[in-house]
Amino acid sequence: MNTFGQLFKIQIFGESHGDFVGITIDGCPPGISIKEEDFKTDLARRKSGAKGTTPRKENDKPIIISGIYKEHTTGSPITILFENKNTHSSDYNFRTQPRPGHADFVADKKYRSFNDDRGGGHFSGRLTLGLVAAGVIAKKIIHKTTIKAKLTEVGNNKNIAKAVENAVKSGDSIGGIIECTISNVPVGLGEPFFNSAESLISHAVFSIPGIKGIEFGSGFAAAKMKGSEHNDLIINKEGKTRTNHAGGINGGITNGNDIVFRIVVKPTSSISLPQETFNFETGKIETLEIKGRHDACFALRVPVIVEAVTACVLADLSLITNDLITNYE
Amino acid sequence: MNTFGQLFKIQIFGESHGDFVGITIDGCPPGISIKEEDFKTDLARRKSGAKGTTPRKENDKPIIISGIYKEHTTGSPITILFENKNTHSSDYNFRTQPRPGHADFVADKKYRSFNDDRGGGHFSGRLTLGLVAAGVIAKKIIHKTTIKAKLTEVGNNKNIAKAVENAVKSGDSIGGIIECTISNVPVGLGEPFFNSAESLISHAVFSIPGIKGIEFGSGFAAAKMKGSEHNDLIINKEGKTRTNHAGGINGGITNGNDIVFRIVVKPTSSISLPQETFNFETGKIETLEIKGRHDACFALRVPVIVEAVTACVLADLSLITNDLITNYE
Amino acid sequence: MNTFGQLFKIQIFGESHGDFVGITIDGCPPGISIKEEDFKTDLARRKSGAKGTTPRKENDKPIIISGIYKEHTTGSPITILFENKNTHSSDYNFRTQPRPGHADFVADKKYRSFNDDRGGGHFSGRLTLGLVAAGVIAKKIIHKTTIKAKLTEVGNNKNIAKAVENAVKSGDSIGGIIECTISNVPVGLGEPFFNSAESLISHAVFSIPGIKGIEFGSGFAAAKMKGSEHNDLIINKEGKTRTNHAGGINGGITNGNDIVFRIVVKPTSSISLPQETFNFETGKIETLEIKGRHDACFALRVPVIVEAVTACVLADLSLITNDLITNYE
Amino acid sequence: MNTFGQLFKIQIFGESHGDFVGITIDGCPPGISIKEEDFKTDLARRKSGAKGTTPRKENDKPIIISGIYKEHTTGSPITILFENKNTHSSDYNFRTQPRPGHADFVADKKYRSFNDDRGGGHFSGRLTLGLVAAGVIAKKIIHKTTIKAKLTEVGNNKNIAKAVENAVKSGDSIGGIIECTISNVPVGLGEPFFNSAESLISHAVFSIPGIKGIEFGSGFAAAKMKGSEHNDLIINKEGKTRTNHAGGINGGITNGNDIVFRIVVKPTSSISLPQETFNFETGKIETLEIKGRHDACFALRVPVIVEAVTACVLADLSLITNDLITNYE
Repeated sequence: MNTFGQLFKIQIFGESHGDFVGITIDGCPPGISIKEEDFKTDLARRKSGAKGTTPRKENDKPIIISGIYKEHTTGSPITILFENKNTHSSDYNFRTQPRPGHADFVADKKYRSFNDDRGGGHFSGRLTLGLVAAGVIAKKIIHKTTIKAKLTEVGNNKNIAKAVENAVKSGDSIGGIIECTISNVPVGLGEPFFNSAESLISHAVFSIPGIKGIEFGSGFAAAKMKGSEHNDLIINKEGKTRTNHAGGINGGITNGNDIVFRIVVKPTSSISLPQETFNFETGKIETLEIKGRHDACFALRVPVIVEAVTACVLADLSLITNDLITNYE
Repeated sequence: MNTFGQLFKIQIFGESHGDFVGITIDGCPPGISIKEEDFKTDLARRKSGAKGTTPRKENDKPIIISGIYKEHTTGSPITILFENKNTHSSDYNFRTQPRPGHADFVADKKYRSFNDDRGGGHFSGRLTLGLVAAGVIAKKIIHKTTIKAKLTEVGNNKNIAKAVENAVKSGDSIGGIIECTISNVPVGLGEPFFNSAESLISHAVFSIPGIKGIEFGSGFAAAKMKGSEHNDLIINKEGKTRTNHAGGINGGITNGNDIVFRIVVKPTSSISLPQETFNFETGKIETLEIKGRHDACFALRVPVIVEAVTACVLADLSLITNDLITNYE
Repeated sequence: MNTFGQLFKIQIFGESHGDFVGITIDGCPPGISIKEEDFKTDLARRKSGAKGTTPRKENDKPIIISGIYKEHTTGSPITILFENKNTHSSDYNFRTQPRPGHADFVADKKYRSFNDDRGGGHFSGRLTLGLVAAGVIAKKIIHKTTIKAKLTEVGNNKNIAKAVENAVKSGDSIGGIIECTISNVPVGLGEPFFNSAESLISHAVFSIPGIKGIEFGSGFAAAKMKGSEHNDLIINKEGKTRTNHAGGINGGITNGNDIVFRIVVKPTSSISLPQETFNFETGKIETLEIKGRHDACFALRVPVIVEAVTACVLADLSLITNDLITNYE
Repeated sequence: MNTFGQLFKIQIFGESHGDFVGITIDGCPPGISIKEEDFKTDLARRKSGAKGTTPRKENDKPIIISGIYKEHTTGSPITILFENKNTHSSDYNFRTQPRPGHADFVADKKYRSFNDDRGGGHFSGRLTLGLVAAGVIAKKIIHKTTIKAKLTEVGNNKNIAKAVENAVKSGDSIGGIIECTISNVPVGLGEPFFNSAESLISHAVFSIPGIKGIEFGSGFAAAKMKGSEHNDLIINKEGKTRTNHAGGINGGITNGNDIVFRIVVKPTSSISLPQETFNFETGKIETLEIKGRHDACFALRVPVIVEAVTACVLADLSLITNDLITNYE
């Protein structure tokens, strides 16, 4: 399903070359100030245009359909649309020779060839516009908490601009690592088992196309550490720890220290270089050249999307958790 | 909440030193053959006793309360209990000086000191007994698919027995890496956005205590790869790919190739070595020595639990997905 | 929340005087033929214009945003909008003197005066447009099953046209009874406890504004019957019963006989007659006269909405149930 | 599924002749005082033994497995079991000649003959023990609100004792009407559409075996009323209304006046009188005589169960709603 969240619930919809993509946010509390300009910064961070990102130009203006009145949330579902204007039609048939690394093959099978395959259809980075919009609202709910994600490495290289330029030149693509740090987190978000803070954050993050790994705190390095090194010693009554190898989460529950996690973004699947892959019409492995516009490094756009989905998780947990702690009395 | 799954739904309950821990599995189809002996192998793999695991001895015999009749599932909720017999009482107070790396501090805050803190209470590895039992049933639902998890590395060392022995001797603990491979996976499980196969597997896996990272296919190494290297070229009409950098999942949906993921298990938090950490009674940082039984390397027990939660995800997705593909006609 | 359903999930949004109201249907299987004209009949049945219904004129044309491609469902979320054109602004302030029988008072309290109160805002019969559209699609999923709802009585009178005319003349309003019969129902839909067929149908039906009661089969008359009268004797191996006092449901599960239920629609709350009710500004009970357009008997429009939500329930149950019966093998 | 609730979630399990029936309550806030004796009154109200109820004797003592420690809820899942001791084996085969009015036929079909059919299996009134136990806890959460259900009529007769006695004598059974009144309800519980207060209460109530109708406020009588009669005029700033035809709910949301609803309980299906119904072995309609113990009027036991499930709904709504109103600030 295309929904996420328990009390702060998001539902996305749309296809790359349909008239609109959009999102509905259900369960947002009333009275939160939302102006159209509030969306600008984050939508701009996601937007295309920088070197290494696709030249598809869209104005990405949010069209608010419901749930906001007199510049405040009403408590009713908020639906926001984004128009798709700049859609190229193409002769390329994703069913005949599915693009390697893309969802073309699985979509065709899963939806028995009824999926809208124009521009990737529902499997499009365009859908993340809605996620960013939801994130803007979620960030307002958890306004004391700050979330900052940044690209720390692309293609095994810390000089990001240079690495991207090289990828563009070579007609190839590169992946990257994003680190996300969340500060001023209340103690007590998350549940011991199935809704651990790590479970919910990873669930949300893996819904962003192209993410293939996540680690919290010391992450994979923990395998090489001893308990005496990895344990974070508590140093005051607020639970502050000397180190933060746990990444701010113990037993699935936030401990008040910064939540820190890193994710890996795979290299963009669409590349200009020719590839030898299966042609379902001829039944043979044949050369494929993917024409058109694509990001050489779509990891450049991902940080704001990571922030957005993480904000949605934290908004949901805040609504749920405060509740369980305080309300029955 | 302590529930997981949409059609194949599991609910766990219990505390380390209560009379029982257990699980309820709701939504299991009727007619699946289940004998008591079916649980033996997997429960034994999880059981304590090996070098490096805690000497707490329990018989771990599943007590079936409901949902199984004449050695077959009935379609009604299946509840299975495990008795806790070998519970040591202890003078140690987890609230006064919370153990570093444990959930003692967060549990005390989240539950306003009402949590059962004996032996870690609800935050106990004992609860994973229920997960393993659910996994045994889930594996029967997806019986054509095989799931194999194994420990590939502990404490930066491939000689696992030796590394564990050293950790035990030194009174310290070590972490590890587990790799899980799932074969004979149907094409089409998972959803493009919030219920991607990666989202659901990671959600389930991060509910196992002590997991701090997960990566699919090439995982973090993908950041250092080019698209031309990472893309898996399709070589036949079943969608088989030459390489498997995607780990069997494209666009959130299984592509029929093996699902491959790796997780990191942190070193056991309880160690015999003294640690300098905060004492909430004295308000000072003081030495803590944790007495009693603990695993020097609890990663040894985790593979069967990883298999179990993964089987639950796949059973759920199988029930949901077949449905969407075939049933309305 | 404004969502309903487990596998066939609907989410509504919009306000009476916003630009659009709409619905998203998530989980609809791919490959179902949907043409714009398929919506016409049911939308027309719901439409205003008949004597006794409000003179607000809207074209009620469905605008399909996503999820339908080449006149078939794609398997991705289907979003459908309806434009609100004929919105009158009004000086009337629902917060000062809330209309009796309306949600004005509770909405103001629940949403702390942030709700959009123009024309009733989110609490508007306009929202049922989305329900009817979802019903059109749901009916296609369960195409072998037929659902027929009809108004059987208004204001204690079987001569419906006459009763409505009288209500209009007197500036008052009247309620009614609707009976819904569902034929060709498979045996086995619904669950023994919380998701009984009655639970799910009543849940859906009570989300239609103005419904205040529901009864299945003999319903309230069963209180006056003996077991020997009420028990439906089975007369053949398909489970056909001689009588149908159970209304087609035993133990929460459909038994293959017609599902029959009746609902009561209260008289429209907005009436032209003056009413003595509280004025929150003056703090006194004062006369209120509600100007503008309203249905003297909105029960006239409800049958098609009842069919729609019932179809959504049955589509959802069909997807879930077939699944549990057949797919794991 | 056998679960209900969003934040206060209940899961039932068990069969009539299994070792135990039980319930798990997940999401209960920590710190609520619960002693074993707290369950006594409500369990006694449900218990058998009175004239007109089955002579099956059980001690109905709650066995608390988890989630309660030092006589307070811990915040972890609460599992409670009830032992089934007094189980008679019987030669009667529910599959050969399904009892009219019972779930025998549908259970056999739905679960493909794998259901436990001893004593009705999972379709047993024994399961309501868990509901009553959950209700005891839920009532503590919403302790300012009182819920009172009572049997107002059986078999078209206000002299209840006499009517039951007659039914017992004749070997037949009778149904009844129960009225439930909820006082001190906060304004603002429930949602405008799918989770209207009526939707959730009816959903819960229809999961009690044998309920066939529900009406709120004036209920079915509203069909015979005019708007000018049915509208409840507001008389003070707390929203108190002169009449309560709406039954305390407008637009799906509680308005602070008493919630009032009535339900109908069908006559017990098991009667001593012979019935002519289908025999699946012989393929003929044959006489059936049901031996053994049964309630002549199980409506006598239902009031406390209605209170329990209603309390669960209100506890859940209280946790959700307070949350949305207050917590994000």
